[in-house]
Amino acid sequence: MNGNSDSGQPKVSFKDILAKKHDGHELTAEEISTIVAGACQGTMEPVQIGSFLTSVYLNKLSPAETSTLTLKMKESGDCLTWPDDIQSLAIDKHSTGGVGDKVSLPLAAALAACGYKVPMISGRGLAHTGGTLDKLESVPGFTVSLSHDQMVKTLQEVGCFIAGQTKDICPADREFYKFRDATSTVKENGLITSSIVSKKAAENLKALILDVKIGSGAFMENLDKGRSLAQTMVDCSSSLGISTRSLLTDMNSPIGNMIGNALEVAESLQCLKSQGPQDLVDLVVSLGGNLLNLVDPDSVNSTEEGCARIKKCLSDGSALRKFQGMLEAQGVSSEHAHKLCDPDGDIWSVLQRSANKTEIVSNETGYVESIVAMPVAQVVQKLGGGRDKPGEAINHAVGVELLVHVGDHLEQGQAWAKVHHDEGHLSEEVSSLLRSALVVSQSQVQTRQTRVLEVVNPSSIPEA
Amino acid sequence: MNGNSDSGQPKVSFKDILAKKHDGHELTAEEISTIVAGACQGTMEPVQIGSFLTSVYLNKLSPAETSTLTLKMKESGDCLTWPDDIQSLAIDKHSTGGVGDKVSLPLAAALAACGYKVPMISGRGLAHTGGTLDKLESVPGFTVSLSHDQMVKTLQEVGCFIAGQTKDICPADREFYKFRDATSTVKENGLITSSIVSKKAAENLKALILDVKIGSGAFMENLDKGRSLAQTMVDCSSSLGISTRSLLTDMNSPIGNMIGNALEVAESLQCLKSQGPQDLVDLVVSLGGNLLNLVDPDSVNSTEEGCARIKKCLSDGSALRKFQGMLEAQGVSSEHAHKLCDPDGDIWSVLQRSANKTEIVSNETGYVESIVAMPVAQVVQKLGGGRDKPGEAINHAVGVELLVHVGDHLEQGQAWAKVHHDEGHLSEEVSSLLRSALVVSQSQVQTRQTRVLEVVNPSSIPEA
Repeated sequence: MNGNSDSGQPKVSFKDILAKKHDGHELTAEEISTIVAGACQGTMEPVQIGSFLTSVYLNKLSPAETSTLTLKMKESGDCLTWPDDIQSLAIDKHSTGGVGDKVSLPLAAALAACGYKVPMISGRGLAHTGGTLDKLESVPGFTVSLSHDQMVKTLQEVGCFIAGQTKDICPADREFYKFRDATSTVKENGLITSSIVSKKAAENLKALILDVKIGSGAFMENLDKGRSLAQTMVDCSSSLGISTRSLLTDMNSPIGNMIGNALEVAESLQCLKSQGPQDLVDLVVSLGGNLLNLVDPDSVNSTEEGCARIKKCLSDGSALRKFQGMLEAQGVSSEHAHKLCDPDGDIWSVLQRSANKTEIVSNETGYVESIVAMPVAQVVQKLGGGRDKPGEAINHAVGVELLVHVGDHLEQGQAWAKVHHDEGHLSEEVSSLLRSALVVSQSQVQTRQTRVLEVVNPSSIPEA
Repeated sequence: MNGNSDSGQPKVSFKDILAKKHDGHELTAEEISTIVAGACQGTMEPVQIGSFLTSVYLNKLSPAETSTLTLKMKESGDCLTWPDDIQSLAIDKHSTGGVGDKVSLPLAAALAACGYKVPMISGRGLAHTGGTLDKLESVPGFTVSLSHDQMVKTLQEVGCFIAGQTKDICPADREFYKFRDATSTVKENGLITSSIVSKKAAENLKALILDVKIGSGAFMENLDKGRSLAQTMVDCSSSLGISTRSLLTDMNSPIGNMIGNALEVAESLQCLKSQGPQDLVDLVVSLGGNLLNLVDPDSVNSTEEGCARIKKCLSDGSALRKFQGMLEAQGVSSEHAHKLCDPDGDIWSVLQRSANKTEIVSNETGYVESIVAMPVAQVVQKLGGGRDKPGEAINHAVGVELLVHVGDHLEQGQAWAKVHHDEGHLSEEVSSLLRSALVVSQSQVQTRQTRVLEVVNPSSIPEA
């Protein structure tokens, strides 16, 4: 019932800590530690965890509380440790999740090509959000389960891996996360931050770039909320000794032209072959350029210099070779990896294709004002490309291919999207949902040059 | 996980209701009903109940939410139903709990002597709070477990009973209450109100008087908090069709001279024999007088008239005869009941006495400025007269007898309290704790004429 029983529990009781938080007082490191340990060890009752999460949701966490909670959650499990030659170069990127967001694939490879080590622990998709692991699993043979030895070997020999979470990393996050959903306390900056940053901190990083997505297809609907979350995350991560910066990026329309698992791998390969859509390439370059400047400001003394280095790796084929190396290190056969990464290889002889393609045509003539991300993502999910519940199998081949961009002129009857599906006939439900994504205007639309809206730096000098 | 599964659950999910309450919106009756049903049926997870209680604790309940929650909690279990001749006369009193508060014993008897029916469901003591049931159980043979038939018979033949809660009354309150303690959400007016009033409403009352105690020995430390709670309870109870009023009464010093179970029964008998301490008699008269005016304003057209009727029942022996009848109806032998209630009977041949008495003397000369209630209550608990956990056995004989009142002159070395205990030697811990209760001043102290501080009426006409 509380923490001060006779069984060697801490002196401060859960009840006392809850009362203190309810009353709006800042919790001490010891009190937060007691909560995290209680949640992991099962000595804190679920009803008390629900109370804690709700009190935090309504009273918020201070920066100090957020840092401490994140640290204690990181320390609740194993941390990845690296040999010195890797440790000093370990960097990563995290995105709050978008539609068509395949940035991690080319970016990990490009950073490795720049000489850095990218121990990327990633997640699976749920609901409309695609998962990086799901995308990679559309490559036959690719495994997301790596032992620590395999991780170290891959970082040494290739420079990057993209693997799944293990149960030994941040167990406290799993405890809190399952309850946050049930108690409608997901959207609190301190709780979001502790969940994301604790896992990234467990990767033992030197630098981290965060991509906080803003818009109708994102977790954060507007710039104010996104900026506030980004600042909390950047400050927290910095306080744990990781050089951190965040970009706020536009997530109203899907990223690139491809939405769906195998389709997004294909588009990632295009990007690595200098044939990617401009918005995707720009995002990869901006995130990577900032990260290079963060991790080694002496050598990369501006973001522009960092961006130039990333661009070079994308154009000279060095990032593509890293991607090929990563595929092979993570279980893909040399033959398949070669076919995917050879500029003239037939990637569709390796990647799974859907049985049917159906074009969706415009009902009117005009200019594309927007392609709303959410209905596009929902279409992919309905086709089987996403999951409703954790653990469900998904169809890697299905997806949506966009044939136009915002600002393009469109004639009535002209195809603007191609649906890759395994249905005999595309249902009216799916096609009308997809049609709802297209907004056509009679006047020419100003198109945004870049998806990057703002850069968020730490609000104070981090306690390294 | 939520309420909208396929198994015939309500359409609104627990998650949605929690999100709405977290965001500060007022819940509908249907939503509150869903929560109460979910808590009783076990379909709402404990983590979600903890979230609900905490959200309510921090965002408060509106008057409408409090009324609805109280009604749904009442409806979660059985209600006591009465024949028409009882129903129209059913009245009761509830106190938020004090030290030495034995008012229910003489008051129930006095109200019965006035011709009313008092189906008093009461509780046991916990920590420093004494329980009415514990006091009565110091009378050999007294049973607090009555069947519904026994209740009706006792009301018809005597007019009052004092019995324990049954598990079928307000099961929702038990669910919420056990979790309120674990989540430190006990002290919220709407939750306190729903817990108290739902159980009183299940008694099917016509009128109810509430005694909200204020001061160092009470749940509510100051007048503002007490007034706010009283208003919430009075309004809620009125909205359920019960004529309700509350007195705010001073609870800084213990009520009467006796604190401890058998000692308080003895003092209640003194009160019924016109020998009670003035502050106890005044409380019984004020609470009873207000209640008579509430339930039958045509016949008892002022509180003063009500008070006069109660005084008469206490002085003419009619209340004492009702108390004797109640004892016999609840299992006490005629011989014992007679010995207790005969003006010349030896009550200590029936009630249990402790083995030893130790007098505590004053260290200084002066006037009694105050006798602080809390340490006195803690002494009784330490002697075994109270319990630390629900279900523990207690010692009915032990207690503290105060030999002086606020305002009395006291000489150094004069005894001011007598401790009734079963220890061979009173420990220094207990005697120094008790000494801390006495505050002596060098100047004469103004003493309060009455414990009644304020009267709280409904803030609007009740929806009968």
